Amino acid sequence: MFKLIKKSKKSQARLGILKTAHGTLKTPFFMPIATKAAVKNLTTDEIRELKSPIILSNTYHLYLTPGMEVMKKAGGLHKFMDWRGAILTDSGGFQVFSLSKIRKILPQGVEFRSHLDGSKHLLTPKKVLEIQKTIGSDIAMILDVCPPSTASHKEVAEAVSMTTKWGKEAKRVIKLKEFSNSKQLRFAIVQGGIFEDLRLKSLKDLAELDFDGYAVGGLAVGETNQEMYQVLDYLAPQMPDNKPRYLMGVGTPENIVEAVKRGVDMFDCVIPTREARHGRLYLQVKSGFGKGFYETINITNAKYKNDFSSINNSNLKKYSKAYLHHLFKTGEPLGMRLATLNNIEFYLKLMDDIRKYIKRGAF
Amino acid sequence: MFKLIKKSKKSQARLGILKTAHGTLKTPFFMPIATKAAVKNLTTDEIRELKSPIILSNTYHLYLTPGMEVMKKAGGLHKFMDWRGAILTDSGGFQVFSLSKIRKILPQGVEFRSHLDGSKHLLTPKKVLEIQKTIGSDIAMILDVCPPSTASHKEVAEAVSMTTKWGKEAKRVIKLKEFSNSKQLRFAIVQGGIFEDLRLKSLKDLAELDFDGYAVGGLAVGETNQEMYQVLDYLAPQMPDNKPRYLMGVGTPENIVEAVKRGVDMFDCVIPTREARHGRLYLQVKSGFGKGFYETINITNAKYKNDFSSINNSNLKKYSKAYLHHLFKTGEPLGMRLATLNNIEFYLKLMDDIRKYIKRGAF
Repeated sequence: MFKLIKKSKKSQARLGILKTAHGTLKTPFFMPIATKAAVKNLTTDEIRELKSPIILSNTYHLYLTPGMEVMKKAGGLHKFMDWRGAILTDSGGFQVFSLSKIRKILPQGVEFRSHLDGSKHLLTPKKVLEIQKTIGSDIAMILDVCPPSTASHKEVAEAVSMTTKWGKEAKRVIKLKEFSNSKQLRFAIVQGGIFEDLRLKSLKDLAELDFDGYAVGGLAVGETNQEMYQVLDYLAPQMPDNKPRYLMGVGTPENIVEAVKRGVDMFDCVIPTREARHGRLYLQVKSGFGKGFYETINITNAKYKNDFSSINNSNLKKYSKAYLHHLFKTGEPLGMRLATLNNIEFYLKLMDDIRKYIKRGAF
Repeated sequence: MFKLIKKSKKSQARLGILKTAHGTLKTPFFMPIATKAAVKNLTTDEIRELKSPIILSNTYHLYLTPGMEVMKKAGGLHKFMDWRGAILTDSGGFQVFSLSKIRKILPQGVEFRSHLDGSKHLLTPKKVLEIQKTIGSDIAMILDVCPPSTASHKEVAEAVSMTTKWGKEAKRVIKLKEFSNSKQLRFAIVQGGIFEDLRLKSLKDLAELDFDGYAVGGLAVGETNQEMYQVLDYLAPQMPDNKPRYLMGVGTPENIVEAVKRGVDMFDCVIPTREARHGRLYLQVKSGFGKGFYETINITNAKYKNDFSSINNSNLKKYSKAYLHHLFKTGEPLGMRLATLNNIEFYLKLMDDIRKYIKRGAF
C-alpha cells in the first residue's frame, strides 16, 4: 500500500509510493481542495492537465449537500464530479468544530446543527465511515475531536482521549464485512495540540490500532509556525516509518518545505485556491527552497495596470499581468479562474521540485 | 470583403463569406459577447474549441476600463486577451444611452458621465473610430443615436438625422490617411425605431455613404417580437444585397431564425452568457427550427437534484444535471462556467445548423 523509496540523508525527508484504488501516488504530494465536489473555478480536466493525481473533498460539506441520497445515486463522488484520480475525504470533525456554532461531544460521537439550515445531525465514527464509503473516497479519515489552538491541556487531553476511543470504535467498524472488503484506505488523526505528552500519547494510542496512515490534525489552527515545527520535530520521528504521514490543512510553501524536512508525506490547504480568489498569485522566483525562492503578488495592485510582462506559469504564459489586473478590477470571473490555475500549478510544481531534490539527495 | 454565396428560394435567408483581418467568416453567424475583454467565465481557448470565429467586445466598456492607454501598450485587444479570431466592437452609443444616467447629445457627439466614476467624456464619430482603431477590432461600428423603444416619432426622427450627420463625419474621418490604410471594416447602424418612414430614411442616408456593412440598431430594446419582425420585413429587402447585415443585440433562438429568414447575416446577444449565470440552459430538442426545436431549463429547479441524465452538449456530456444543480445550489463558480459553455455551444450549433439548412435549400 505504502512503500518508502528513499530517506534523505540531510533531513527526515522521505520519498514514497502510495497505492490507492485510483492510482499510485508519489509522496510527498499536495492535494488541491474540492470542498463541495469541485475545485473552485476549475474543471477536473484542468486538474488532470495540471497532473494532480489526487484531490481532497470535505465529508461534512458533501454530507449536508448534495447529501448521501444523491451521492449514492450518483455512484460516488468520482462519477458525480467526473474525477478519475484519487480522492481523500476528511473526517468532518474539523468542519463540525469550525463551521457549526452549536455542537456537543457525546461519548458516541459529535452532535451538531448544520451551518446551512440548523438541522440536527450526529456524526459517529461509524457514520463517518459510512458517509465516506458512500462518497467512495480512496482515503477516508477517522472521526476525531479537533480542539482550538487556545484549548487548555485538560481540554486537549479530553480531545485526545475521545479521539482514541473513536479510533477503537472505527477499527471495530472497519472489520465489519460491509467495510472490510473495500480498497479504501483509512487514516487516523493524531491530536494533542502543542502539548508534547498529549501528542505522543495520541500517536501511541492510534498507532496500536494499526491504521493505513497517520495524519497530524489540530495544527495550522492558530499556533505559530515555530510551535507547529516543534510538534513535528518530536512527533514525526515517532510515527510509523512504513505508513504515510499527512499534515492536515498545511500550508504556506515554507510550511510544506519545513514539514517535508521533518518527514511529512502529504498536504492539503485552501491557500492556493482561496488566495487566488483575492487576486494573490504565487510565483516561483528561483530554483531550490532557500529564502525568497518564491513571491506572492497581489494582481489588483495598481502597479500591474501597465505591467505587460507575462505570468510565467504554463497556463498563463499568454496573458500579461495587466490583463489579469484588468479582469480582477472589472470583476470578470475569468480572473479568479486564471489565478487559481496559476496557484495550483505553483503548488504542484513545488511538490514536484521537492520530490526531485529528495531523489537526487539535495533536500 | 463580403461575398454572397447563396440566397434561399424559400425565404430571404442568405449564405455568405465575410473576410476580415482575422479570418474569413461564414454568414449567418453569432458573436459571443466579451464585454470587458473576456467572455464571462470562459477562456479564449474555449471559444476557439467551440469554433467561434468571432467575438464582440464593447467600445464603451473598454474605453473606460482598462482605458486606451493600456489598450495601446497592450498592442490592441487581440493581444490583450489572447484572441486570434475576429473581433467586432460596437459604437458605444447603445451603452451611453443605457448605462450612463447623465448624457447630452450635441451636434459634434454625445457627452456623458461614466457609470463607474462619474467622469465626463465626449464621444464623437472620430473619437469612436480612434478608440476602435486602438482596440484593433476587425469590424468597427459608426457612432449612432439609439433612442429607447418608447421614443416618439419626432424623437426618433432626430436620432436618425443625427446618426446620418455622424455617419457623414465618420466617412470623412475614415478617408483620413491615419484611418484609410487599415483593414478594419466599418459598419453603419440604421436607426428609426419601429417607424417605417424613418427606418427607410436612415437606411437610404447611410447606404449612400457606402459603408462596409449595415447594422440594424435600436431593436430588441423593448418592442414586441412582431414589431421587430415587421421592421425587418420592410427594411431588409432595401438593404444593400452585397453588404453584410447585422441585427444588433438579437436575440432568442426564435428571433435569430426569424431574422435569418428575413435576410440578416450577423447577430450578437448577451442571452447565452447572461442566462447561464442564472442557471438557465439552452438545450436542443430536435433538428430543424420548428416549434419546440429547443427548450430552456432552469438547472436550479429542485427536480434536477436527482436527475442523473447527462447534459448533451459536447462539453457537458460527462456531467449530470444533478451535478450542475449541486454546483449552482452551493454557489460553486464552476456551475456558471459549465452553463456558459453549454449555452454558447448551443448558439454556435444553431448557426451551424442554419447555414447547413440554407446550403441544402431547406431553410
